[in-house]
Amino acid sequence: MNERLFSYEELKEFTASVLESLGYPADRAAETARVLVEADTRGVPSHGVARLSFYEMNVKGGFAVPGAEPEVVHETPLSAVIDGHDGIGPHVSRFALGKCLEKARSVGAGFVAVRNSNHFGMAGLWAEEMAREGMIGMAFTNTRKCAIVTYGREKLLGTNPIAVAIPTGTGKAPFLLDMATTTVAHGKIEVYDRRDREMPLGWAVDENGRGSTDAHHVESLFKGDMPYGGQLLLGGEGETLGGHKGYGLGLLVELLCSGLSMGTWSLNTFKAPGSGITHFFAALRMDLFGPSEDVQAHVAAILDDIRNSERVEGEDRIYIHGEKENEKRACCMQRGVFIDEATRKLLAGYAERFGLTPLES
Amino acid sequence: MNERLFSYEELKEFTASVLESLGYPADRAAETARVLVEADTRGVPSHGVARLSFYEMNVKGGFAVPGAEPEVVHETPLSAVIDGHDGIGPHVSRFALGKCLEKARSVGAGFVAVRNSNHFGMAGLWAEEMAREGMIGMAFTNTRKCAIVTYGREKLLGTNPIAVAIPTGTGKAPFLLDMATTTVAHGKIEVYDRRDREMPLGWAVDENGRGSTDAHHVESLFKGDMPYGGQLLLGGEGETLGGHKGYGLGLLVELLCSGLSMGTWSLNTFKAPGSGITHFFAALRMDLFGPSEDVQAHVAAILDDIRNSERVEGEDRIYIHGEKENEKRACCMQRGVFIDEATRKLLAGYAERFGLTPLES
Repeated sequence: MNERLFSYEELKEFTASVLESLGYPADRAAETARVLVEADTRGVPSHGVARLSFYEMNVKGGFAVPGAEPEVVHETPLSAVIDGHDGIGPHVSRFALGKCLEKARSVGAGFVAVRNSNHFGMAGLWAEEMAREGMIGMAFTNTRKCAIVTYGREKLLGTNPIAVAIPTGTGKAPFLLDMATTTVAHGKIEVYDRRDREMPLGWAVDENGRGSTDAHHVESLFKGDMPYGGQLLLGGEGETLGGHKGYGLGLLVELLCSGLSMGTWSLNTFKAPGSGITHFFAALRMDLFGPSEDVQAHVAAILDDIRNSERVEGEDRIYIHGEKENEKRACCMQRGVFIDEATRKLLAGYAERFGLTPLES
Repeated sequence: MNERLFSYEELKEFTASVLESLGYPADRAAETARVLVEADTRGVPSHGVARLSFYEMNVKGGFAVPGAEPEVVHETPLSAVIDGHDGIGPHVSRFALGKCLEKARSVGAGFVAVRNSNHFGMAGLWAEEMAREGMIGMAFTNTRKCAIVTYGREKLLGTNPIAVAIPTGTGKAPFLLDMATTTVAHGKIEVYDRRDREMPLGWAVDENGRGSTDAHHVESLFKGDMPYGGQLLLGGEGETLGGHKGYGLGLLVELLCSGLSMGTWSLNTFKAPGSGITHFFAALRMDLFGPSEDVQAHVAAILDDIRNSERVEGEDRIYIHGEKENEKRACCMQRGVFIDEATRKLLAGYAERFGLTPLES
């Protein structure tokens, strides 16, 4: 194993130890460590162990309360509303997902809206887990405000991801769409800022609400806590390339999460106490639509037709959503999980600070 | 009333008469006429009475069978799968929507997948109808193939629209997102072709799968029944502006419609007998999440915050999805429905052909 690759289990254990040192009870530390390391194994480091510093900030800033327990505040045979009481995001989400699955197992579908939670990691992980039980799984969340709506100037919505998983047969990877409704993840703008590169038009707007390619300037607007300027939603500025559709998708996620849970919407998140983050989970059993294996096989056949269709010259593959991440994970489980230099330093710093055995690659 | 404005009721009656002359039974003619005229009142002429010639083609081509009756082929307390038996789209959809609402009224939610249907008009109409009953309404459909997936060359997916309506209180317009998952509606490319204008990059690709601004060329690829070249999905070409996300959304719609109904997917539609069009409807009662009026008021308050947020200089309003169309409809009901010249000629032609009293403005 080279110096940048770490064993999945060791990375998870080490991450859990850091979280326990930050005040997390053991069960929450384990669940959160799993969520973070799973993102790294899928090649999504923006939601991986590098987030430990953000999770630490959430505890220190009074946004996340490690010992808090979620509570069901409304319930029907099909649905529940959960108040996370500012608990740890993956812990609150584990509880919510359990409720959602329990309902779907018993009546066919489950819907759970969650308020007063915290960052729950990569949305797709939760959706994927439902697909493993032969259900369509959906997971949505709002986030810190960062996105500009069509013709607006203020940061109002979050990156508001949509994750939907549809099972395609036993032992096969599900279709797994897991996308921020913004054009790109915020991390991508940070990278352009660090590398001194001009951004493509369509990623962000300046404080006047006009398209900007200046990553330094846009980042300074974020860091300065300026209400204006921010990321664009899918489709970019104005309506020419469908920016109003991306705005609609981001707003839809907001209404499912903060609307249905009667929680805080992105504009008002991260005003302690509590971050006010909200989620929405849905599970639909595939056998609502016929013999589950048959329906899944039909879905799988459509995906195969797409995989086998003709490609643009120079491209060697047409991917189905989730496939890249799934293959990446399989590779990481064999060869180890890649951790970049900045994150390795972060982990080494935690080891020193909390007297933990440093992680060896 | 000026010569381009028509009374809602008269336009609907005339349209129904044309459809009856084309062989539609009276009930189907009335339902289809309503669906078409409602689109015109909302300022969506691409789905309005101008579509009569397409509906005629569907009957003549053996894609739509006016007398066919839909049949429930699978059912649970929460869900149904319907075989439309190549019936008229709005008739099949009326039946499916009835099933969906019936289930949601009785158990809290309803899910209906439909195969072997036909064009059902503007997706948002069906979603909106569910919202009027205090439910989140969703309507999806696949269409004729026209869209290119990321790194693909062949037309595979349709415009595959997403429509979601969320009620915001008694007597108030719902949030109504109704969007093709392609960057623009096909009709927009036709307009650029007719007006001899260069399209923006991000709308379409040529037969080699590379971005094209040449509306004439792209239209010729459609008309020539060429398998290559077509529209781009939201986010455009490649991944820079999130084209893979638009591809994921279009594919998600495809899997919900043709996957869950075990029907025909967009690639294989319009190979008579039957067009093979598929739909998916979902209804969720708002009181799954608390007292319905309270939840709706919470949703409405988020929307008000957005409406009242700061705008880009020169823009006088931030719209919520569905608002523009709703106001347009109110205006049309008072002042009359606008019908463009080409469509007035189409209607006059039908009057002459079938000996109907010509419509007077």
